[in-house]
Amino acid sequence: MRAMRIPSGGRPVSEIDEFDLIESVRKTMILHRTKRLTQGIGDDAAVWKPRPGHELVVTNDMLIENVDFRVPWIDFRDLGHKALAVNLSDIAAMGALPRMAIISLGLRGDERDREVIEFYQGMNGLARQFRTVIAGGDISDSPLGIVISVTVIGESSAAGKPLMLRSAANVGDVIAVTGPLGLAAAGLRIYQHDLRDIDGAPAMRAHFDRPTPRIREGRLLVRCGVRAAIDLSDGLLGDLPKICEASGVSATIDATKIPIPSSIRWSFTDWFDVATRGGEDFELLFTAKPDVFHRVCRAFRRAGLAEPCRIGEIQQAGSDGSEIRLRQQDGRVETIEPGAFVHFGPKS
Amino acid sequence: MRAMRIPSGGRPVSEIDEFDLIESVRKTMILHRTKRLTQGIGDDAAVWKPRPGHELVVTNDMLIENVDFRVPWIDFRDLGHKALAVNLSDIAAMGALPRMAIISLGLRGDERDREVIEFYQGMNGLARQFRTVIAGGDISDSPLGIVISVTVIGESSAAGKPLMLRSAANVGDVIAVTGPLGLAAAGLRIYQHDLRDIDGAPAMRAHFDRPTPRIREGRLLVRCGVRAAIDLSDGLLGDLPKICEASGVSATIDATKIPIPSSIRWSFTDWFDVATRGGEDFELLFTAKPDVFHRVCRAFRRAGLAEPCRIGEIQQAGSDGSEIRLRQQDGRVETIEPGAFVHFGPKS
Repeated sequence: MRAMRIPSGGRPVSEIDEFDLIESVRKTMILHRTKRLTQGIGDDAAVWKPRPGHELVVTNDMLIENVDFRVPWIDFRDLGHKALAVNLSDIAAMGALPRMAIISLGLRGDERDREVIEFYQGMNGLARQFRTVIAGGDISDSPLGIVISVTVIGESSAAGKPLMLRSAANVGDVIAVTGPLGLAAAGLRIYQHDLRDIDGAPAMRAHFDRPTPRIREGRLLVRCGVRAAIDLSDGLLGDLPKICEASGVSATIDATKIPIPSSIRWSFTDWFDVATRGGEDFELLFTAKPDVFHRVCRAFRRAGLAEPCRIGEIQQAGSDGSEIRLRQQDGRVETIEPGAFVHFGPKS
Repeated sequence: MRAMRIPSGGRPVSEIDEFDLIESVRKTMILHRTKRLTQGIGDDAAVWKPRPGHELVVTNDMLIENVDFRVPWIDFRDLGHKALAVNLSDIAAMGALPRMAIISLGLRGDERDREVIEFYQGMNGLARQFRTVIAGGDISDSPLGIVISVTVIGESSAAGKPLMLRSAANVGDVIAVTGPLGLAAAGLRIYQHDLRDIDGAPAMRAHFDRPTPRIREGRLLVRCGVRAAIDLSDGLLGDLPKICEASGVSATIDATKIPIPSSIRWSFTDWFDVATRGGEDFELLFTAKPDVFHRVCRAFRRAGLAEPCRIGEIQQAGSDGSEIRLRQQDGRVETIEPGAFVHFGPKS
């Protein structure tokens, strides 16, 4: 019998980059791929083909109290909305349509029953908007903090059109985003530093509290022939490198073309970092050949959606691998350190 | 801005029966059923029909440190095995075949990378045994304790045969279980009270550490025409009432026919409760017409599996609703209070 666990070898997880750890796990699993599973650990969602001609997209996200959300900053209705939204956003990033969701909820026990109902109502409101069925779930004890686990299953939205992947960007592609960047990160700042009076605060808080998954946009992108996309959960400079690394390319971004709302420029001295390294925008970042991009703009206009913003282009990787470069207004191009803010940990 | 959360109305969740809470949630969701979703919140898994003739079964379970497992009592390989096994058991309870699993893992940060790899190896070993693909997942920070969320998607195993449900038991059905009861609960006692030297300890610990989901058995049951089943996660007296309530029937159990290993009778003064109220056996409890039950016994023998034990019969519900009755060796029948042990909370 194991009376006490003997410390085993290896490094503590906290000292290891998350991506390295997932890469090690992926190697453990590699023997276990089949033809029916076309994308596994690594993309926004797994793609599974249960039958020929039928593609399912499966994604799961876990939200942990004081890591991914703080109860004083969010009400339960918004929490339910957001927990589903981050998963629907992964489905949107592949251009699929969400169909069903299954929820596990771990509760401390001091929550009110009304709050739990509100949580599900918030989730249900968003689910209905995107015709997703909440198919079940479980409630369990989690004395040390609320834990929410949501799994969403979607179907590919356009027969014959491939789903969008991180790994499908090509040299010469336009880089574009579906909407303004930084509002959710600004919303988080408002909560962190009690900045309720700054200009544009309601919009910032709304983006943080109740993000909108870009399902319609993702579907249109796939229909227009876009092949590479990701949803912006870690900011432009956190997520663009994931596309570049998966595709083996570099990217140059025009600093002046990034859609940063003026309210963010006015309110924060580090507005550029807020807009490009803050997380949770949940806009789609995609790359496409120039003619496909023009088709996308026409399709978005016709659908009554704001046109995506062209912010840069995909280029060959350098000798050191993928690089992210920033082109300033004066034409100067410099390599920029990729990376996102840490959202907020127990120390913040 | 919400500076502080104002305590809202309603009762604290800790004072509410979990089933009542899930029932309230179900009512919130009721507007949201569709024809494509045949079973929702409440059964072991949700059943979804993405296309005519194609049934998918989706289940999710969350395991929380110090609620569902304790790190000193289990190694990471066993933890990976068990986290997948409890989900596969839900698939088995419906008579479906597991196809893919998606994992989210929240880590404190002081785990070793080797332990994380072992976790996935343990999971992968079981996945291969049942031809389930680990399709992806995520690792995130969970400073206050390990959280494991596993979602498994399965397919119905026999075209044209309905999946097994809790709600399909009928008056006159035989009640049966696929194997001995109480070994896992005894294994938990060994860890709790350091009883390493009792007779049969290795088998008890093995049942607790590495339960076997009864996938083959569930598939055979469906093929033989069994319609009602559940997996024993909360013990016979915890789970049989769920079948009875969902089906609107009562049950009488023969005390002498419950398969309780003699090692449990010898080791524990409360051996009857250990066997019937302890959880995590993960045997299947099912009900079937007598002729279907005979067919099941023949099919199990032919497949080289131990025959299920017939332990009682389904009867009409009384005027007060579903009852569980126990028939003693002398023929005396008494109503017995249903319910399971609390597994182990932070106070135990």
